[in-house]
Amino acid sequence: MHRMSLEEAEVLAKAVLNAQGFNQEQTQALSQAVIAGQRDECHSHGLYRLLNCVKTLAAGKVVANAQPEVHDHAPGIVRVDAKGGFSQLAFEAGLPILTAKAREQGIAALAINHCVHFSALWVEIEAITDQGLVALACNPSHAWVAPAGGNRPLLGTNPLAFGWPRPNGQPPFIFDFATSAIARGDIELHHRENKPIPEGWGIDRLGQHSQNPADVLDGALLTFGGHKGSALSIMIELIAGPLIGDLTSAESLAYDDGAGASPYHGELILAMDPERFLGSTLEDYMARAEDLFSSIIAQGARLPSQRRYTARQRTQKEGISIPESLYQELSRLARL
Amino acid sequence: MHRMSLEEAEVLAKAVLNAQGFNQEQTQALSQAVIAGQRDECHSHGLYRLLNCVKTLAAGKVVANAQPEVHDHAPGIVRVDAKGGFSQLAFEAGLPILTAKAREQGIAALAINHCVHFSALWVEIEAITDQGLVALACNPSHAWVAPAGGNRPLLGTNPLAFGWPRPNGQPPFIFDFATSAIARGDIELHHRENKPIPEGWGIDRLGQHSQNPADVLDGALLTFGGHKGSALSIMIELIAGPLIGDLTSAESLAYDDGAGASPYHGELILAMDPERFLGSTLEDYMARAEDLFSSIIAQGARLPSQRRYTARQRTQKEGISIPESLYQELSRLARL
Repeated sequence: MHRMSLEEAEVLAKAVLNAQGFNQEQTQALSQAVIAGQRDECHSHGLYRLLNCVKTLAAGKVVANAQPEVHDHAPGIVRVDAKGGFSQLAFEAGLPILTAKAREQGIAALAINHCVHFSALWVEIEAITDQGLVALACNPSHAWVAPAGGNRPLLGTNPLAFGWPRPNGQPPFIFDFATSAIARGDIELHHRENKPIPEGWGIDRLGQHSQNPADVLDGALLTFGGHKGSALSIMIELIAGPLIGDLTSAESLAYDDGAGASPYHGELILAMDPERFLGSTLEDYMARAEDLFSSIIAQGARLPSQRRYTARQRTQKEGISIPESLYQELSRLARL
Repeated sequence: MHRMSLEEAEVLAKAVLNAQGFNQEQTQALSQAVIAGQRDECHSHGLYRLLNCVKTLAAGKVVANAQPEVHDHAPGIVRVDAKGGFSQLAFEAGLPILTAKAREQGIAALAINHCVHFSALWVEIEAITDQGLVALACNPSHAWVAPAGGNRPLLGTNPLAFGWPRPNGQPPFIFDFATSAIARGDIELHHRENKPIPEGWGIDRLGQHSQNPADVLDGALLTFGGHKGSALSIMIELIAGPLIGDLTSAESLAYDDGAGASPYHGELILAMDPERFLGSTLEDYMARAEDLFSSIIAQGARLPSQRRYTARQRTQKEGISIPESLYQELSRLARL
């Protein structure tokens, strides 16, 4: 393993992105997301993800110097056209208007269009909870998942993320999960390691449950939670697809046309302002939410994201480590 | 079984509610919800539910002549204080402002406070999709469900419902599910019939998985979908509880204090206007949503609510039927 500080990791990430042709603004936004993933030890969204950024650029599926266009679309809606770039800079461009609208209206929506997407949604959720707002985000992906009762891929892995700000400097309550039973990457991992997958992750081409990862990669993933998870996934297709004038997961996969690039679609983010809802009773009700969290923890249950926050405390002191082979590959891409 | 037309069922429902002391407005709103449930053959939310209304009133846990108070709280928020009445009349009072705000702002929230709740959320969702709007609704209930990794009841059965309007007179895409693995009523049914429940529905007092319905009623239900369903359920506690200045499921159960009445809490309903989001591209993107539905059906999968719509077509022609004993009991309560 190769150890480095978070600062060194950021320098490396920026060097890769710059050397590969991303402009200053895109590089800044992308490296921030990748470093956040690495810092919280979400390795698949950490430095490793830079390889995918580079691959997507090489495939001509992302615009390296895209300049997002912000449209103040309605009192409760801000739209950002990512212009074919990755989502992160578009999100940054829309965030100040989203938060201003949420404070003014009580609730507001940010619709990002025409973005290439690989971000973990918790990064964006946390940027909103940092402002004292409640946040909800979702997006389609590529059509790899069958609807409940179906037998062919149609839905994306469609992540759903939610955040609630907490007082006294505590990290926010955040969850961020795929509505598929499992990430496609986990099935690929089992395939590479020649290991069977658990029942319930996927079906083969004929729609039969299968524990053979190759057959499931050739067939379809299933959603989590049976018909309920499937319904949620369809909701995400609708509200982060047609509602915001963007692609469904099936349309995104068709656009990819076998390139194996990151999905290209939209993203819907909602923000709600507890202060606007609660006025002078804000503190009282935020304290009641804390009571709920305390009751969860008192049962021995964990709040979601706790593992990330623990990793964050550690890596901020001790730095991060990545496989030596990944470090070598990134150094080569950075032309160091 | 006792057969009757939907009109006769409505007359009976109104007679029961009036005779038991609900005023004209409350009776109208309540009977409409109960008849919608009966019409769609959601029997637990049909005429049967009148017994629960009456029990809740007898326990002093609902205000029979509550006059909801509407507050235009913020450009994107309308609040309705149900004044301790059932939720239905409060929802009706808030609906015109919610839809007006959604059309103006693009997105808006209706927060119902201090309501006693038994409604299936799809009834309210459908009232919003009937206006061409997208809707999302949720509420806490009583604390009967343990969080993932926990061993004691804390969360409600916390339903989540979503609706998407469809063109050409087609019924809307609607789902409405409890975030618990199963309704508490289903466990009660197994208990009465002395049948074991499937693995995964609940745990006993010691936090151990159990297939004994009595032990689970004494312990806790589980959420659907493991930690993901649990996270969703916690989100619902937060956004339909503290965010709108109302009770969590634990607080609602404490308020009930053993009376066995319907839960008392708030409800959050969001509405989004596709026309405000999409402008002149509305038709194109609504057609793309139809493509998604077609692709689901082409796989042999069913859209949610399909069973309800089929029942609706049948009962509108042929009428409904309820057990003779229920008919006798309702007639007695109606003092017919």
